[in-house]
Amino acid sequence: MRFSLDDLRTLARGKLLGAGLSRAHAEAVAETMVAGERDGCASHGIYRLLVAVNSISRGVVVVDAEPVVSEPAVGLVRVDGGGGFAQLAFDRARPMLVDKARRCGIAALALNNVVHFAALWPEVEALTDAGLVALAFTPSHAWVAPAGGTQPVFGTNPIAFGWPRPGREPFVFDFATSAVARGEIELHRRAGKPIPDDWGYDQDGQPTTDPAAVLAGSMRTFGGHKGSALAAMVELLAGPLIGDMTSQESLAADRARGGSPIGGELIIAIDPAGFVGNAVTHYLAGAETLFAGIEDQGARLPSQRRYAARRRSLAEGVVLPAALYDDIMALPSGE
Amino acid sequence: MRFSLDDLRTLARGKLLGAGLSRAHAEAVAETMVAGERDGCASHGIYRLLVAVNSISRGVVVVDAEPVVSEPAVGLVRVDGGGGFAQLAFDRARPMLVDKARRCGIAALALNNVVHFAALWPEVEALTDAGLVALAFTPSHAWVAPAGGTQPVFGTNPIAFGWPRPGREPFVFDFATSAVARGEIELHRRAGKPIPDDWGYDQDGQPTTDPAAVLAGSMRTFGGHKGSALAAMVELLAGPLIGDMTSQESLAADRARGGSPIGGELIIAIDPAGFVGNAVTHYLAGAETLFAGIEDQGARLPSQRRYAARRRSLAEGVVLPAALYDDIMALPSGE
Repeated sequence: MRFSLDDLRTLARGKLLGAGLSRAHAEAVAETMVAGERDGCASHGIYRLLVAVNSISRGVVVVDAEPVVSEPAVGLVRVDGGGGFAQLAFDRARPMLVDKARRCGIAALALNNVVHFAALWPEVEALTDAGLVALAFTPSHAWVAPAGGTQPVFGTNPIAFGWPRPGREPFVFDFATSAVARGEIELHRRAGKPIPDDWGYDQDGQPTTDPAAVLAGSMRTFGGHKGSALAAMVELLAGPLIGDMTSQESLAADRARGGSPIGGELIIAIDPAGFVGNAVTHYLAGAETLFAGIEDQGARLPSQRRYAARRRSLAEGVVLPAALYDDIMALPSGE
Repeated sequence: MRFSLDDLRTLARGKLLGAGLSRAHAEAVAETMVAGERDGCASHGIYRLLVAVNSISRGVVVVDAEPVVSEPAVGLVRVDGGGGFAQLAFDRARPMLVDKARRCGIAALALNNVVHFAALWPEVEALTDAGLVALAFTPSHAWVAPAGGTQPVFGTNPIAFGWPRPGREPFVFDFATSAVARGEIELHRRAGKPIPDDWGYDQDGQPTTDPAAVLAGSMRTFGGHKGSALAAMVELLAGPLIGDMTSQESLAADRARGGSPIGGELIIAIDPAGFVGNAVTHYLAGAETLFAGIEDQGARLPSQRRYAARRRSLAEGVVLPAALYDDIMALPSGE
């Protein structure tokens, strides 16, 4: 089934309303799902309708939460999401974050008490669209063991970064600090395929090629002790620093309902004109020289596959697999 | 030869004065070298006297540079190091950074036009000592290839992070985004030992076990495309963002003199009370629960080996290898 992005947005919005989300939440969440599908991120696209509806039906999400934005300090913004999805909380707080980053040079936004099911790049790109440099961090559920251990402590704890490129798609990366995405292990389990024995451990702390055993046991971080250190940093920055839960606390709070993680997210925004003023054009051009030095040797900048898919989708729309389409159409619709 | 830390400081200071450094620079630089030796970081300890004196003798360092601190925005501090060593520039700018972080909740410091030979953890620890959370980044010389390429673009581009732990040594990590430290490859070369074939490439872009070939060719990043993305982020944050050089530009500016890299460093400081106010004690305790979850399973927090060495050195002083002692004593001393 081929859809224009507008039709896909209408479909997603209707199903989210049908699941009980308030109009404001349905619109914000649909936007993120359409962006994922548009960029060819199947696991973070329209498929997430099923994930979001599951979280709602299990009572994990406050469907009509009204985010409350506050200003704890000159350079800080806080938004209490009230247990709703993160997207609306971010949308409501973003203007103040952008304004503070421009006025102070650097500013930070804490999303608190929000349910997360999406990637971090939509937040980061919203800030590069405003001409800002951005960093984002969020814990999840405790599924990942620290280097040197085998018991889960960390979430998959992604880190995202964005750098604005005038007239071009931004330089953006967004990756889990776990060795692989949890969804990747889940896909292997569904397909009955073994996984490499360095992705995780079973519940006895032994390396295993059984995806189900790793899902019940623990995943590894990427990059050994360095990735493990970064995973700990994400816990600290987007947990205790912002007055929110660690991945262990979030998993406990889920009470085995199996919903998306609830907790916090930290976003740092920096104005590229802050330090260099009028020379910003000169220095942004210097960054382009760096990018050329990477691409000219045949290496790829992050997100290039995503941007290629985006260009295609904007021109031609997107195609949903039949099974996914059927699953989605089976969900009730709202008006 | 066993030294008390005080005697070591006096020795280092004298040799730095003998090399022509101004008194203020000699004191700041000696402090960093003593801290490295105290913490058992041989390659970042007193050995660096030889590295620093080499950089000075090759004309890379402005020996009496007077750092100039400015305030480009409410949340930003900038210090122009005037081509001198980074330590004095940081010392001069630190009070304003600490003050801004406390007033704004988050603040950033750019060190510009400074010569770097040290680790980043001394800067990060100076901020955790002030009760702040800190992040630091610096490029170096273009020695490291991006994932998917074999030509050097990035520096070894360390990332350091610090989290204050009341009454204890802070949670601190500081690692290169290259697969290994450049010094590690250099040690193999001196010892005539081969290196693993996944540390780098020769000048033809082929994997090699010859350390000299990798030093002349390119090193790899840690953690595949994720480490490569982080290396690019360090270039951007501590280069164009702060109006300073990338690792390629810094290498070109060295004009094959072989001195320590000159360029910039970005430090971000966040007040843990900024978002949570009076609840800061509660949330710092939550971080301790995270740390216990790591240590209780036998995994190690970063920097623990360093802190153990520190406790030993504070009690017993440090021992310098005879060859290093002889090399240092051969340097001229100032008064």
